[in-house]
Amino acid sequence: MRVIGIDPGLTRCGVGVVDARIGRASLVAVGVIRTPASRSTPDRLVTIEAELLRWIEEYRPEAMAIERVFAQQNLHSVADTMQAAGVASLVGARAGLEVAYHTPSEVKAAVTGSGTADKAQVTLMVTRILRLAGPPKPADAADALAIAVTHAWRGPRTNRYAAAVAALKGK
Amino acid sequence: MRVIGIDPGLTRCGVGVVDARIGRASLVAVGVIRTPASRSTPDRLVTIEAELLRWIEEYRPEAMAIERVFAQQNLHSVADTMQAAGVASLVGARAGLEVAYHTPSEVKAAVTGSGTADKAQVTLMVTRILRLAGPPKPADAADALAIAVTHAWRGPRTNRYAAAVAALKGK
Repeated sequence: MRVIGIDPGLTRCGVGVVDARIGRASLVAVGVIRTPASRSTPDRLVTIEAELLRWIEEYRPEAMAIERVFAQQNLHSVADTMQAAGVASLVGARAGLEVAYHTPSEVKAAVTGSGTADKAQVTLMVTRILRLAGPPKPADAADALAIAVTHAWRGPRTNRYAAAVAALKGK
Repeated sequence: MRVIGIDPGLTRCGVGVVDARIGRASLVAVGVIRTPASRSTPDRLVTIEAELLRWIEEYRPEAMAIERVFAQQNLHSVADTMQAAGVASLVGARAGLEVAYHTPSEVKAAVTGSGTADKAQVTLMVTRILRLAGPPKPADAADALAIAVTHAWRGPRTNRYAAAVAALKGK
């Protein structure tokens, strides 16, 4: 299953594509879409839409997983991030992808085993899970890969627990 | 100047189009885009995009004004509303419209003179400003008209104060 993970944002929108099978995942591509703060929010959203479309056309993922944003930080950046998430979601759904949201704690739990892991732990585990020689670059794209891995491993086709249950039922 | 005002939301997205001149405004069209809660957020955003495109194609506004959402209410509905605002903003910018955001208190102040006016006062003033026989229908579209009027009257071509200053300078 190929998943595109999105860590939404206007200034930096992390994008990571992974191929996942049961208990395994490998890196396809990773990057960050950046838009300058000097441009208006609507213009920046237009750029994000265009860039995400290029990612989807190039890598043809089957699913999109977006980090769910909470309104705990400062109001302006949350509004920006949520609008970027809306554009990502729109682009994914329009392209016929299955689109899902995962919370930061779901992502941390899925890749590290702990919902309260810090950024360094998430990056370390993403590096190991994808068997990379070093941490993903750019560094701020590691979260996008973590989101993609989380989604893949929660899905019915790639979830170890679901696979084990299915195997038992098949007996 | 023709302005499309957007009161963003997933369940109800208010849309109002007005034509404005200095000190005057008239109704062009008003309505609400509704999407059922039974559908996924990404699918609902796709519908909102398609419907807003139809509004823009039909009424050809020069500017789009979106109500700026704050994260004071419950988290889920704010996330939905901000994602809808992002899609509206994207659609407007892509269509070449000038896109701006106005806060609820700016809108209240512009149409009623008070930033703390209640919903009934806003509806009453919108009805009077647009010289309607009765309150706009559907009722939940009145805010979208208020946002459009606010934007029009804040602009340099339709602002009474700016016009008065320009007239004095012209002497």
